[in-house]
Amino acid sequence: MDDSIYTLTNKSPSRKDFIDTTDFDQSEILDIIKTSVIVRDFIKSGHTFNPLYHKNLAMLFEQKSTRTRVSFEVAMSQLGGHALNLAPGAIQLGAHETIEDTAQVLGRMCDLIMARVDRHESVKALAKYAKVPVLNGMSDYNHPTQEIGDIITILDNLPPEKDWNDVKVVFVGDCTQVCASLMMITTKLGMNYVHYAPENKFLSEDFQKIGRENAEKYGGSVKVTSDRACLEGADFVYTDVWYGLYDKETPKEVYMKDFYPTFQVNDDLMSATKNENAKFMHCLPANRNEEASDSVMDGKNSICFDQAENRLTAQRGLCLYFGGVAQTALDEIKNKKEGNN
Amino acid sequence: MDDSIYTLTNKSPSRKDFIDTTDFDQSEILDIIKTSVIVRDFIKSGHTFNPLYHKNLAMLFEQKSTRTRVSFEVAMSQLGGHALNLAPGAIQLGAHETIEDTAQVLGRMCDLIMARVDRHESVKALAKYAKVPVLNGMSDYNHPTQEIGDIITILDNLPPEKDWNDVKVVFVGDCTQVCASLMMITTKLGMNYVHYAPENKFLSEDFQKIGRENAEKYGGSVKVTSDRACLEGADFVYTDVWYGLYDKETPKEVYMKDFYPTFQVNDDLMSATKNENAKFMHCLPANRNEEASDSVMDGKNSICFDQAENRLTAQRGLCLYFGGVAQTALDEIKNKKEGNN
Amino acid sequence: MDDSIYTLTNKSPSRKDFIDTTDFDQSEILDIIKTSVIVRDFIKSGHTFNPLYHKNLAMLFEQKSTRTRVSFEVAMSQLGGHALNLAPGAIQLGAHETIEDTAQVLGRMCDLIMARVDRHESVKALAKYAKVPVLNGMSDYNHPTQEIGDIITILDNLPPEKDWNDVKVVFVGDCTQVCASLMMITTKLGMNYVHYAPENKFLSEDFQKIGRENAEKYGGSVKVTSDRACLEGADFVYTDVWYGLYDKETPKEVYMKDFYPTFQVNDDLMSATKNENAKFMHCLPANRNEEASDSVMDGKNSICFDQAENRLTAQRGLCLYFGGVAQTALDEIKNKKEGNN
Repeated sequence: MDDSIYTLTNKSPSRKDFIDTTDFDQSEILDIIKTSVIVRDFIKSGHTFNPLYHKNLAMLFEQKSTRTRVSFEVAMSQLGGHALNLAPGAIQLGAHETIEDTAQVLGRMCDLIMARVDRHESVKALAKYAKVPVLNGMSDYNHPTQEIGDIITILDNLPPEKDWNDVKVVFVGDCTQVCASLMMITTKLGMNYVHYAPENKFLSEDFQKIGRENAEKYGGSVKVTSDRACLEGADFVYTDVWYGLYDKETPKEVYMKDFYPTFQVNDDLMSATKNENAKFMHCLPANRNEEASDSVMDGKNSICFDQAENRLTAQRGLCLYFGGVAQTALDEIKNKKEGNN
Repeated sequence: MDDSIYTLTNKSPSRKDFIDTTDFDQSEILDIIKTSVIVRDFIKSGHTFNPLYHKNLAMLFEQKSTRTRVSFEVAMSQLGGHALNLAPGAIQLGAHETIEDTAQVLGRMCDLIMARVDRHESVKALAKYAKVPVLNGMSDYNHPTQEIGDIITILDNLPPEKDWNDVKVVFVGDCTQVCASLMMITTKLGMNYVHYAPENKFLSEDFQKIGRENAEKYGGSVKVTSDRACLEGADFVYTDVWYGLYDKETPKEVYMKDFYPTFQVNDDLMSATKNENAKFMHCLPANRNEEASDSVMDGKNSICFDQAENRLTAQRGLCLYFGGVAQTALDEIKNKKEGNN
Repeated sequence: MDDSIYTLTNKSPSRKDFIDTTDFDQSEILDIIKTSVIVRDFIKSGHTFNPLYHKNLAMLFEQKSTRTRVSFEVAMSQLGGHALNLAPGAIQLGAHETIEDTAQVLGRMCDLIMARVDRHESVKALAKYAKVPVLNGMSDYNHPTQEIGDIITILDNLPPEKDWNDVKVVFVGDCTQVCASLMMITTKLGMNYVHYAPENKFLSEDFQKIGRENAEKYGGSVKVTSDRACLEGADFVYTDVWYGLYDKETPKEVYMKDFYPTFQVNDDLMSATKNENAKFMHCLPANRNEEASDSVMDGKNSICFDQAENRLTAQRGLCLYFGGVAQTALDEIKNKKEGNN
């Protein structure tokens, strides 16, 4: 038996906080993914363990959340710890007290902090002032925990005989944080990324630059286009809602004019991939029959609910990795498996 | 020692979800009750165990709740698991995403779902689309977890020498979900049920039909009447608030005219039972001195706070039964007791 | 090794509830502090234990809270139990049902209750009607859990060669609950307490009377003054926000006229102590650069974040002590330490 699968490349996180995947090298992202997948398989096979025994994660929400909140809370519970839900309004960042003070206080009481914030600056300030690791649970800039779960889902669904760096991923529609995050993580792993959108909704030049630098370093590619031909050969077609977020929220008549019907992921768009095995992805929640048709969301190639489940897979890996116990957890799993042989 | 008390009649739930007691046979209801009572006595005697170790229950609330929320959360904690409180507004069923999608996502991350919903259709949709068991924590139609706790409380307080199927239970007042639920569970167990109310507040014919069918099958009786003589011989007098629920909420001057003073459970009404041992029940919260007087609520025959405690008793049994580990839990208790002998 | 440090003076709490430190003798306060500190050091050295295994604390909030909520929830998690967050609005004390009924119900399901209330009468009513211990998480009268954490912080920072009863503590500014609470606990321990404030903001005569009685009994002193000379020789300078609380909330132009700039704790005020080692304390949250300057809050003599951390230290001690397992927990720690020798 090859034990090297249980050994991480990096002994400990190179940065205390998980704010942006761009802060990390490819090998570290792969360590997080490896941890996530091995722990998922261990738990799915009926095992329990407690690598974060009695550890507490403060979850800070400036925005409502279903998937992020539930996945982190379940992850901590399954790892022997506990997550505190600080719901929108329960703590007002920068209102009753400064973010800096809140960060210092939470860092004195909890072992980890996860924050979903209105402004990216807020999660950076939390990371700077809290002595414990801070995980970015989505900001107006990016959504890195989503990235990890998405990559796991892509790796789970690699076309046979394709290496991951041969994969083509097309994001269709609005340049949301998820659109940008997907670009950052796929190019970091050397995949081929396309943003297919109307011109006024292209990923910003700043984001494209990150993608191009990644592509150069890791051997993939990045393209932003409104040419439908870009869909050809896609292994994964990914979309997100159209209505914008936070202060950028857009009225329905405006966004429908921008995107509908050309950028709706429906059977017609999927057939433009000329790949009958192309998978459909969505970070959810979805506005069904706006950005994606029921036929695609509920079709046999839809992996969007696997994706949702892999939010949990990723959160476990992230809590272990930034909690400093990823290698310990993998060692425990390795020993249990060897004990069973 | 007779071990058969630790053996359930049914090896596993006949339905994945606990939406309506009418879906289940008497023997299965008795299995749930047996599990609940044995586990209660085990824990009350100072034991701890973890039959739902690392399992997670999502609690979804469209309506505020004290008893249902606290009892499920404590139940999961005492069984080694964890409950997530998704408070009203935290997830808007059918708003940001369809109920069906929420059900699929929660079912991928959690082991059990409990939902208190505005519309009965919502909890049925959750059950249909979630792959994990869904427990109905009250809808506008019924309140089945309350039913289990109420029956446990009735069995705890059976008049000496009376079998359970000789018991007479009179519900006084508004035809709430609790009024209907009590009818469904008492008749399923062959008890004698009466709804004493003004004519315009009688249980609907649809509900009465369920009661009559149960009575025929299990040997009890059901009656709906505004004749005060119906109280005679009651072993249990049960009431609920008068103000209606959700969109049926009624202004005070209207409901007082309907019910007050005739249908207030006070000393005069209790004396109409001609049974000085008749017990008083209320699902709570109460509008004191509307539907019930302080003298009765705080009197020596009041068992309404025992009833509240048995919400916890019931939730433990329900989580174990629908979590698929009721027999395992009872076996563990049996073995611990035998180890002590 | 001297084991007496692990032995409490009082075998069990003299009162079921922790509503007001004035209800307790000095020796009992010292038992709570001893428990808190020993458990803190045990956990900080990497140990885990579960003296409140499967026990549940209901946290009832009529007011928002960060520190109290997070510290109690983490405390219960670290002691093997669980805390339920009943946020403002989740349960409306005295609205949907009477406080008395809520107290009875929660007491049937949970092992401990902690309540932050609008009115001191509410927490007293909860204590009277709940059969389980009730801890006062702040009322409009006092803040006794804060007192325990503050004293621990003071004892952690005693000037070398000074006994605790030689210490001088000056509270600067508004007569908040924390101002009053600090007076009650410092005088109970024989310390010297000063309230330095404008005349219209002096601690009430009722509070001063408690302080004088404590001072007489335990050998300290209490003074209320607007003479800046009172700062001389202070070992600890403590302040709180100026804006008032609840229905006493004051507009900014009013409170600034009362307090600013004379009663702002800034470098000038600190130098009036003529003690370069005088420590700065604040219960937080702070309105920075109103009641305290950044230079002091972030200065080398600031211990306000240690204070925040000691909220957690205190909550663990309080849950153990009023949960009736403080001595058991200390015995377990003693045995583990001896086992290691």
